[in-house]
Amino acid sequence: MGKQKTLKIGIIGAGRIGKIHTDNLAMHIPQAEIAAIVDRDLKAAQQIASKYHVTSAYSDYQKILDDPKIDAVAIFTSTDTHADLIIAAARAGKHIFCEKPIDLTLDKVDKAIDAVKKAGIKCQIGFNQRFDPGIKRLMDLIKSGKIGELQILRITSRDPAPPPISFIKSSGGLFLDMTIHDFDMACHLSGSEALEVYAMGGVLVDPVIGKAGDIDTAIVTLRLASGAMATIDNSRKAVYGYDKRVEVFGSGGMAAIANNPANATTYHSPNGVLTDKPSYFFLERYADSYIAELSEFVKAVLFDKPTPLSAAESRKPVVIAMAANKSLRENRPVKISEIE
Amino acid sequence: MGKQKTLKIGIIGAGRIGKIHTDNLAMHIPQAEIAAIVDRDLKAAQQIASKYHVTSAYSDYQKILDDPKIDAVAIFTSTDTHADLIIAAARAGKHIFCEKPIDLTLDKVDKAIDAVKKAGIKCQIGFNQRFDPGIKRLMDLIKSGKIGELQILRITSRDPAPPPISFIKSSGGLFLDMTIHDFDMACHLSGSEALEVYAMGGVLVDPVIGKAGDIDTAIVTLRLASGAMATIDNSRKAVYGYDKRVEVFGSGGMAAIANNPANATTYHSPNGVLTDKPSYFFLERYADSYIAELSEFVKAVLFDKPTPLSAAESRKPVVIAMAANKSLRENRPVKISEIE
Amino acid sequence: MGKQKTLKIGIIGAGRIGKIHTDNLAMHIPQAEIAAIVDRDLKAAQQIASKYHVTSAYSDYQKILDDPKIDAVAIFTSTDTHADLIIAAARAGKHIFCEKPIDLTLDKVDKAIDAVKKAGIKCQIGFNQRFDPGIKRLMDLIKSGKIGELQILRITSRDPAPPPISFIKSSGGLFLDMTIHDFDMACHLSGSEALEVYAMGGVLVDPVIGKAGDIDTAIVTLRLASGAMATIDNSRKAVYGYDKRVEVFGSGGMAAIANNPANATTYHSPNGVLTDKPSYFFLERYADSYIAELSEFVKAVLFDKPTPLSAAESRKPVVIAMAANKSLRENRPVKISEIE
Amino acid sequence: MGKQKTLKIGIIGAGRIGKIHTDNLAMHIPQAEIAAIVDRDLKAAQQIASKYHVTSAYSDYQKILDDPKIDAVAIFTSTDTHADLIIAAARAGKHIFCEKPIDLTLDKVDKAIDAVKKAGIKCQIGFNQRFDPGIKRLMDLIKSGKIGELQILRITSRDPAPPPISFIKSSGGLFLDMTIHDFDMACHLSGSEALEVYAMGGVLVDPVIGKAGDIDTAIVTLRLASGAMATIDNSRKAVYGYDKRVEVFGSGGMAAIANNPANATTYHSPNGVLTDKPSYFFLERYADSYIAELSEFVKAVLFDKPTPLSAAESRKPVVIAMAANKSLRENRPVKISEIE
Repeated sequence: MGKQKTLKIGIIGAGRIGKIHTDNLAMHIPQAEIAAIVDRDLKAAQQIASKYHVTSAYSDYQKILDDPKIDAVAIFTSTDTHADLIIAAARAGKHIFCEKPIDLTLDKVDKAIDAVKKAGIKCQIGFNQRFDPGIKRLMDLIKSGKIGELQILRITSRDPAPPPISFIKSSGGLFLDMTIHDFDMACHLSGSEALEVYAMGGVLVDPVIGKAGDIDTAIVTLRLASGAMATIDNSRKAVYGYDKRVEVFGSGGMAAIANNPANATTYHSPNGVLTDKPSYFFLERYADSYIAELSEFVKAVLFDKPTPLSAAESRKPVVIAMAANKSLRENRPVKISEIE
Repeated sequence: MGKQKTLKIGIIGAGRIGKIHTDNLAMHIPQAEIAAIVDRDLKAAQQIASKYHVTSAYSDYQKILDDPKIDAVAIFTSTDTHADLIIAAARAGKHIFCEKPIDLTLDKVDKAIDAVKKAGIKCQIGFNQRFDPGIKRLMDLIKSGKIGELQILRITSRDPAPPPISFIKSSGGLFLDMTIHDFDMACHLSGSEALEVYAMGGVLVDPVIGKAGDIDTAIVTLRLASGAMATIDNSRKAVYGYDKRVEVFGSGGMAAIANNPANATTYHSPNGVLTDKPSYFFLERYADSYIAELSEFVKAVLFDKPTPLSAAESRKPVVIAMAANKSLRENRPVKISEIE
Repeated sequence: MGKQKTLKIGIIGAGRIGKIHTDNLAMHIPQAEIAAIVDRDLKAAQQIASKYHVTSAYSDYQKILDDPKIDAVAIFTSTDTHADLIIAAARAGKHIFCEKPIDLTLDKVDKAIDAVKKAGIKCQIGFNQRFDPGIKRLMDLIKSGKIGELQILRITSRDPAPPPISFIKSSGGLFLDMTIHDFDMACHLSGSEALEVYAMGGVLVDPVIGKAGDIDTAIVTLRLASGAMATIDNSRKAVYGYDKRVEVFGSGGMAAIANNPANATTYHSPNGVLTDKPSYFFLERYADSYIAELSEFVKAVLFDKPTPLSAAESRKPVVIAMAANKSLRENRPVKISEIE
Repeated sequence: MGKQKTLKIGIIGAGRIGKIHTDNLAMHIPQAEIAAIVDRDLKAAQQIASKYHVTSAYSDYQKILDDPKIDAVAIFTSTDTHADLIIAAARAGKHIFCEKPIDLTLDKVDKAIDAVKKAGIKCQIGFNQRFDPGIKRLMDLIKSGKIGELQILRITSRDPAPPPISFIKSSGGLFLDMTIHDFDMACHLSGSEALEVYAMGGVLVDPVIGKAGDIDTAIVTLRLASGAMATIDNSRKAVYGYDKRVEVFGSGGMAAIANNPANATTYHSPNGVLTDKPSYFFLERYADSYIAELSEFVKAVLFDKPTPLSAAESRKPVVIAMAANKSLRENRPVKISEIE
C-alpha cells in the first residue's frame, strides 16, 4: 500500500489565531503537511516552525506562492490584508483557506471572489461556527426533515467581555465583527437568503464603545427568502461567561443548542443547585470546529470536492451586516437589495 | 379569637375560565367567600353554584351589583363585555377583578379606567402570568439587584395549537390576544415602558389564519424607556407543546425560565436521552398563577393595599399591541406615542 | 342520562394526613362522596366535616361501620390502630383504603390480611409513591419493554430533616418508616420479590437518634428473585431539600426520576448557574400521587376491579424491612425466608 | 532567562494506551521531553517515535534504564509486567509513572512499593479518573467544607460494552479491572480508608462472562473508617453509552457528576425532548484527565514535590478489590484487615 496523499500547506500569519490553526493542522489533521510558515515577524514564524518541525520559515509570503511544491495557502493575517493575499494566492494557483471575513468593503470582497473564480482554485472562508458539533447535529435534524419547514431562528451571542477599544475601532463594528457569525449561521441553517433586516442597538455596556462609534448591545431581526424569520441578540459583555445559543423552530419540531457548563458537576446546597458557568471564550468553545473546518478544507482539495463554504457564500453575511448598519443608522427595516 | 375576615365576591361569567377561577376562589383562597354566581345561562350558574355550595345563582349581574353584602365582583365574561361591566361595577362601588384585557379599543379601555378612578375602588386586571412562581423568582432576582441594569429581554411564546378560526376573528389578532401577555411581561420585568416597537410577522402555520386577516408567526422588537431592548417570538403552533420562556439579561447576570417536562423521568436509550414534553397548555402551566393573582387581589382589598396590577397599568400592553399592528401594516418601527 | 354512581366513604382519622386525603377526596375525586368523618377528637372531625359540607361527624368509628349506606372506609389513623380497624371494617363488609403500613408486626399484618380475605372486600394500602407521575412513566417504560430485562435498581431517599425523636421511637425505625417505601418500590418496579437483603447503617446525622435506638443513614442492598439487584441509600437529613430519586437499569436502557427544582428559573451569575432547590417535602412532592391512589381505589371498588395494591402485597415491604433490621443487627446478608 | 527545565522521559510500551499517553506528553505537556520509546515490537516503537520526532526507539527497555540522561520512565505495558519494570526502573534510579494497577497480586505490589521506597524515587500510578475536571471540582467542594462531613458516596460505573472474553480472563475480574477505579475514587474523595466491604454480583449481561469465571453486574457497599458509607454499582454493558457518575453527600450539601451528552443540542419533538447520548468510552470521557495526571507527575518530579498518587496509595484499591472478591465468594461482609 502506498503512502497516503497529503496536502502541502503554506501558512501565512503566525499570530494568535494562526498559532491555533497551525497546531490543529500539525496535530489533528494527518492529511495536512505544513510546508512553510510565513510571518512579517520572521522570529515568530521561526519559533512556530521549530515547534512543529517545519523546515521553512519566511517573512515574505511570496516565497510560498513561488514554491511549486506547495498546494495551498492558509491565511491567518489581519482582515485588511485578506483580499490582497487571496488575489495573489489565486493568481499563483494555490488553493486557499482564509480567516473570515474576506474584507470589510464589498468592493474588495468582490475582487477577491472574482480572482478565485478566474483561477479555478478552491477557496474556503473560516466561518468556523458552522463546524461546531452542536450545529452539525442541528443541520442533521434540519436535513432529515425533523424540524419540518423552518419558521423561526433564534440566536443569542454574548461575549464574556468586550475586546480592546483599539480592536473595536478597526473591526468594522459589532455587526461586521461579531453578528457576522450569526448572519452566516442564519443563512447556513435556513439554506435561504436574507431579504430584509431591522437592527435595534444601543450602548449599554460601556460608553467608551459608543465614543468609538460602535454599539455594544443589539437585537437584529431578519426576514428570509424562505419566509422564515430570525431574531439575533448580542451583547459585548455577559458576566456569566460566553453565551452562545442557537435555536431552530419549524413545523416539525424545535432544536436548540445550549451552553455547556465548564464541568459536569453540580453542587446541591441549602441555597439551590449550582453548576459552573462556561469558563471559556470562543477559542475553547469552538476548539472542535476549528479543527473540523480545516479538516474539511484539506479533504475538499485532496479529493477535488466543493469546499463546504465558498468565497462567494462568505459574501452574504458581510452584506447583511452592512444592511444592519444602515438599518441602525436610519431606524428602519432595510432590504438586502439596497446594499449592492 | 374572632373569625377571620373574608371578602364576599360575586362572580360574573361561568364559562371555561370562570369555572377555573371559581374553583380557585372556593378551594384555594380561604379569605374569599363566593356570595353569588351569575351567568346569562342560568343553568350554568346554578350548576357551578351547587358544586361549591353557593346559595345565590342569577342570570342578571345587576343582582350582584345591587347586593350591599357583596364587596367585589370578578368578571370572567367575554372581552367585549369587560368595559361595560367594569363601569357598572365601579359605579356600584364594587371592587373589581377582571380578566384581561379590558377591551380591544382604547376608547373603551379609557372609559373603564376612568370609571374605576372616579369610584375610588380597587381594580385588578388578570394578567396572570406575572404571578407564575418562575416569574416571581425572576422579579426577586431583578429587585435584589442580581441582574444589574437590565439590557436585553427575550421572550418566547408558542402555543401548542392555534385556536378556532372563529376565536381568531374576534380576538383582535395575534398581538392583542397572545403577545399582549408578553408585552405586559416586558413592562413588568423591566419596570419600564415601551417607547417603540417593530413587528415582523407572517402566515407560516395555516393559510386559513391569513384569510381571517391575522398572522400566526411573529418576531417583535421593543425599545424600552430604560434603554433596555426586548425581543419576542410567537407562533400559534409548536408541535412539541406549549413553549413559554422568559429571559432577562443585565449587567449583573441573566435569569431564564425554562419549560418544565411533564414529569421528572428521563429515558436513556441507545438513541439518546428522552424527557417528556410539557403536556399542557396555559391552564395547566399557569395553574399556580391563577390562584396567586386572585389571592393577591383578595388580600389587596381586605387589607386596603394597592392591587399588584392596576387597571391603568393594564392599558399599556394594549397600546403596545396596537403599535405592533401598525408596525406590521406599515413595515416600520412605530413609536408608542403614535397610538394615542 | 342518570346520575353518575359515587362511592360513599367514611373517613376515620382527621389528623394531618387525614386532612390531606379528605381534601383530595372532596375536591379532586368526583366519584367519591364523603359520607361521614370520624376522629377521637370530635371537634376535629366536625371542623373538617364543616369545611367540606359533610353532614356526619363522629368520635366513634363504629357509627361508620354500622351505617349501611356507607360503602367504604378510609383509615388515616396512627399505625398501631390500622390492623384492628381493618379487621373491624372487613367484618362490617366495608371496602378499605388504609394508610401504610398495616402494622409493625407480622402477626397483626397477617390477621388483617386474613380478615380482608375472609370478608371478600377490597382493600388498598397507601403506598402512594407508586402513583407518582414519574413512577407511572417509569412503569410504562418497563412494561413497554424499553428497559429490557431489569438488572439494577438504584433508589435514593433523603429527607430534608429528621422527624421528632418521639416519632422515631414509635416509628419502628428507619427501615420500617422510611425505607419501607423504597422496598415497596423495588418490588413494584421489578415485578419481583426480594430474596436477600444486606443493610449497612450508622448514626451520622444526630446522636440523639442513635440514643433512641435508631439509625439515620443507611445503604441497603437487595437481591431480587428475578436476578436483578437493588441499592437504596437513605438519610434523615439532606440540607438541600427532599431528595428522592429512582433509577432502573436494564438490558434495553435506563430510566431515572430526578428531583424537580422549586421553579423553572435559572440564575446565571459570575459564579455559575443556580436553580432553586426543591423546597418541599413528601406532601408537596407527592401531592399528585395522593390524589391518584385514592382515585384508583374508588374506581376499583365502583367498577369491581382489583385494587392496584392489595393488602397482601403491602406485607412484602414490611418483611423486607424486618430482614434489613436483622441484617443490620447481625452484620450479614439475611434471606427474606428467615423472617417468617 | 535560561531555557525552561524539562523532564526527559523514556516510554515503555507503544500499544493503545501508550500511544495516547505519548501523544499527550508530546503535544500537551511542554515540560516533558520524550527521550526514547521502547516496545517489544521495534517497528511499533519506531513508528510512534517518528511521528513525534523522537530520535531513540528500542525493543529493549534496558536501553532506557542505562541512559543517564533519562530522568523518568513511563510504563504503559500490560499489567503482568508492571511490577518487574517498576522494580528495575527504581533500581536504575528512574522516577516512574506506571499505568494502574501495579499488579493483581499483593506480593508483587508490595515488592514494587518496597523497591520504590528503597530507591527514594518518585512513583505515580495511573488512576487517571482522579484528575477528571468534574472530580477536581468535587474535591474542591469537599476540601472547602461545602459538603460538610461526608456521609454517603454513590458511584455508578457502567461500560458501554464488555471487553473481549480473552481480556476478561486475564483482567483479574470485574472488581480488579473496573471497580478498582471506583474503590480508588471512594478513598480519594473521602480521604479515608475502607474498613469493610460487601459485594453482591451476578451474570446478567452475558453467560459467556460467567463461564469465564467472572461476573458482569455488581453492587458493592463499603464502610469507611471515617464512618461514611459508599455504594457502587457496575455493569459491563449500558446500551445508552458509558455511564459514569459520582456523588458525595454530607452534612453540608451534595455534589454530583453527571454524564455529558455528546453535544449541547436538544431536539424537541412531538414525542418529547431528546439529547444525544454520550457517544464515547473512557478514552474520550477522560481525555483531559490523562493529560492532567501526566502533567502533575512531570511537575512533581521537576519541582521535587510528592506525586499526587503514590505507589503505596495505589495499593489500597487492589486490597479492596480482593476483599470484594472474597465477599462475593462467601456472601458476607469482609473486613479489609482480612486481606493481608
